Amino acid sequence: MTAEKSDPGAGPATKAAVIGLGSMGFGMARSLLRAGFSVAGFDVSADAVARFAANGGRAAATPADAAEGATVVIAVVVNAAQTEAILFGENGCAAVMQPGTVFVSSATMAPDVARRLAAKLEAMGPHYLDAPMSGGAARAEEGKLTMLASGSAAAFAIARPALTALTATLYELGPEPGQGAAFKMVNQLLAGVHIAAASEAMAFAARQNLDLRKVYDVITASAGNSWMFENRMTHVLAGDYSPKSSVSIFTKDLGIVLDMARSANFPVPLASSALQMFLMTAAAGMAGDDDSSVTRLYAQLAGLKLPGDAT
Amino acid sequence: MTAEKSDPGAGPATKAAVIGLGSMGFGMARSLLRAGFSVAGFDVSADAVARFAANGGRAAATPADAAEGATVVIAVVVNAAQTEAILFGENGCAAVMQPGTVFVSSATMAPDVARRLAAKLEAMGPHYLDAPMSGGAARAEEGKLTMLASGSAAAFAIARPALTALTATLYELGPEPGQGAAFKMVNQLLAGVHIAAASEAMAFAARQNLDLRKVYDVITASAGNSWMFENRMTHVLAGDYSPKSSVSIFTKDLGIVLDMARSANFPVPLASSALQMFLMTAAAGMAGDDDSSVTRLYAQLAGLKLPGDAT
Repeated sequence: MTAEKSDPGAGPATKAAVIGLGSMGFGMARSLLRAGFSVAGFDVSADAVARFAANGGRAAATPADAAEGATVVIAVVVNAAQTEAILFGENGCAAVMQPGTVFVSSATMAPDVARRLAAKLEAMGPHYLDAPMSGGAARAEEGKLTMLASGSAAAFAIARPALTALTATLYELGPEPGQGAAFKMVNQLLAGVHIAAASEAMAFAARQNLDLRKVYDVITASAGNSWMFENRMTHVLAGDYSPKSSVSIFTKDLGIVLDMARSANFPVPLASSALQMFLMTAAAGMAGDDDSSVTRLYAQLAGLKLPGDAT
Repeated sequence: MTAEKSDPGAGPATKAAVIGLGSMGFGMARSLLRAGFSVAGFDVSADAVARFAANGGRAAATPADAAEGATVVIAVVVNAAQTEAILFGENGCAAVMQPGTVFVSSATMAPDVARRLAAKLEAMGPHYLDAPMSGGAARAEEGKLTMLASGSAAAFAIARPALTALTATLYELGPEPGQGAAFKMVNQLLAGVHIAAASEAMAFAARQNLDLRKVYDVITASAGNSWMFENRMTHVLAGDYSPKSSVSIFTKDLGIVLDMARSANFPVPLASSALQMFLMTAAAGMAGDDDSSVTRLYAQLAGLKLPGDAT
């Protein structure tokens, strides 16, 4: 059993389950299949499940059906509420998971919620690994995600072969669920502020009548650069606001940051300003558009043209 | 004369002047000497002038004395007021500069001020190049600064050999003074917001009881990274707040950004929040300390220990 886990391709395939077969979960499930795992998959969309079955997976009818017999169950859903539903709701995984199995939670959520879900599941026998991730659909498909994971040594020991198949970088950040979530929220605070700041700076540059392509070249070679400026402002230059990651992700994640900070009596004025800008962008009808749409919000406020706008 | 300018080492040395021999100006003057320029230098500190003379420069008694006979006069002072004083004040450069020479202004200032100084000088005959820069004392010494320059083709033609000796990257951003200044202010908006955001995130992480060294490792490998986070948070981890660049630089530069934005009826809520955090840090007695001291301000507010604090 140990050899089987550390090298699933060498013996009978280790069974894994993926709950949520969207752009991230589908790629992750395929990475597990490629690494030799036997993978069951469930999604609320029957089309997604059928596509997964056509790619060599086992189609499951419910979260519990997917988790049945799986050693590692990976939840690739949007938030804490969905994670709780697939664990403890109707036809949830928890009821069928056995001791010696592990539930890997990848959604971004508050650390105290991760701790609560973990405590409830572990009281029933299975292990819980708090493992929020970074990286988009392309890296999910390549098995090159970054995971910010925390949990017991036992949980890591069981999950590690699957996580290795999914990641280029696996951070093991501590022995308790909630620690991975806290690191992720620090990252989301910065990521959200940097998108809003990039948008503010790019629109400010447009207001100063600067050539935005030159601004991009100068800033990405200067001390004002950020990972988000470099990545997201290419969308603005292209005038392409189709969602790679939507505004609604950051109204959610910065909302969690603000809740965490308030309950800790800790002031976060930058994150608070950034959240307001994402909320204005959502309020203006762009909640489902790419998060670089914050730039369009500033431009609309100030009556500025951006690349791709009608002249 | 043309050959002399494009390769000053090949003929009689082209004469340059550097006004302001602090950590930046001293390194820049030495880079010009190394490239074969004859360099006169002035500073309000007699010690700085003596040190420059000991390194092969000509000690000047006033800005006008330094500029006398120089083809390129480079001002390396802190702000617009100092730049105006060395140009048009008592013993200023403008009175002795001839047609065919160029004044290179490197201070960060508002574009409209750069335009006003340029118009006044050019009406007298000399050229004006608006050339704010990026990069610290080490890169000044190595002749590897970045310059964000704008000005007439004539100004560039005269200044280019000197600028080439000073820079690894010379951006030529347009034909009018003020354009370089505007690009620099876009960079300073981002740089200031990113320092404040890095400070907010690092202190938030401390409030969540995370290992700050691990936070640094995770963030610098993640989408939340920025140039400023990666650079300034090493100071926080080392508990070293000796000024590489001080808080007062950003109360000044974000102040300029806010003034520009207000006069353009353009909202900059992120820059505004960041400025308030720099002002709180200055108000708490840290105006002359390293700009990463914003992290200490958050920590003091929340009663948190940072690396280097007494236990």
